[in-house]
Amino acid sequence: MRQQGRRHLGQFRVNSFSVSADGYGAGPGQDIDTPMGRGGMRLHDWAFRTRTFQHHVFGRDGGETGPEDDLAAEGFENIGAWIMGRNMFGPRRGPWARDDDWRGWWGDEPPYHVPVFVLTNHPRAPIEMQGGTVFYFVTDGIAEALDQARAAAGARDIRLGGGVATIREYLRAGLLDRLHIAVAPVLLGGGEALFAGLDLPALGYRVARHQAAEVALHLILERDGGA
Amino acid sequence: MRQQGRRHLGQFRVNSFSVSADGYGAGPGQDIDTPMGRGGMRLHDWAFRTRTFQHHVFGRDGGETGPEDDLAAEGFENIGAWIMGRNMFGPRRGPWARDDDWRGWWGDEPPYHVPVFVLTNHPRAPIEMQGGTVFYFVTDGIAEALDQARAAAGARDIRLGGGVATIREYLRAGLLDRLHIAVAPVLLGGGEALFAGLDLPALGYRVARHQAAEVALHLILERDGGA
Repeated sequence: MRQQGRRHLGQFRVNSFSVSADGYGAGPGQDIDTPMGRGGMRLHDWAFRTRTFQHHVFGRDGGETGPEDDLAAEGFENIGAWIMGRNMFGPRRGPWARDDDWRGWWGDEPPYHVPVFVLTNHPRAPIEMQGGTVFYFVTDGIAEALDQARAAAGARDIRLGGGVATIREYLRAGLLDRLHIAVAPVLLGGGEALFAGLDLPALGYRVARHQAAEVALHLILERDGGA
Repeated sequence: MRQQGRRHLGQFRVNSFSVSADGYGAGPGQDIDTPMGRGGMRLHDWAFRTRTFQHHVFGRDGGETGPEDDLAAEGFENIGAWIMGRNMFGPRRGPWARDDDWRGWWGDEPPYHVPVFVLTNHPRAPIEMQGGTVFYFVTDGIAEALDQARAAAGARDIRLGGGVATIREYLRAGLLDRLHIAVAPVLLGGGEALFAGLDLPALGYRVARHQAAEVALHLILERDGGA
């Protein structure tokens, strides 16, 4: 029945999300200068080398092609909306300042080019950026954000950017259809643990596919129709 | 100074220890019929395929050679003694029965061929097996077991077999020199978490080397002289 109801809907998915070998999706001590936490940038070595990241994130030519670039590219194909936690949008916490001029980490033209729904406890008016990105601030929780993203995305997919706490919330609710996780050969020793205490098989997730690459083990997790 | 004092000593190391992508070294529900816990055998797919495991563990010919077999083989080279936790020796807990006939999981001729020091809270006389393996039961803690193993191993290395709780104890004490950990593309959802809550960089460990292979990401962790 669930399948039938969702027939025309896009997938809700995580792509190119990297974790350390000791399980952290970001290192300790995240702040405005170290948005990935101490040592956290190394998680993304595999991604930064790809042509897709060079193009979509840095606006540069060059970069490597191959299976890892293909995985990175999937994360930008057929995406009609993004969702992200407030911590991924910016480093500040609590109510927005009246004259808050924070417009995300990504400059005037963020690499999204579609509506982005930011989960927060504090209302704020939408921010329209160059290149088609509009940040909407959703205060009614993860299910409401997904509903709004679906309405915006139509038949296209919705990508959940992160961070760790937000992914865990959606996993616990069984709302994610698919996750591409890259396990990097890096120890962080602390930070935000992605899977700790989550029984993913019990939540319906399994490893549908994996791809070993030079600097990461890539896993595609999918949720069976089940529960 | 530490280096000087240890000049003639072998390394104390873990080899071919597999963990799931969600961080578990054994699955939930370990018992006599499922010694690795539910789903836990899948962690070892990479190892079972190697010529080394076929030969040393199963006494069979055949199996694959290559980088993963080389890693597996290191675990059996230059080893003068083993240490393991009681749970790795057998499924029973508490005091040994007077007529306890449990002699490990491995039959009359275990694949060790050297002294094996089993950590336990309950004294028991040594058990001499065929092929050179002698099980000694150590009740004075992990440092004492390592001292006894060093005395037995001389200049050769000492291998720590496991399980998870024992490896964590030795990591916390900073006593392990080297660990080969294989991250398998498997979700277990529960069981014994190997790294959770351990700050390995703070304990002096770093990824010295890694090897991506078809069904595992292999990490060599080493401890710098440091702390």
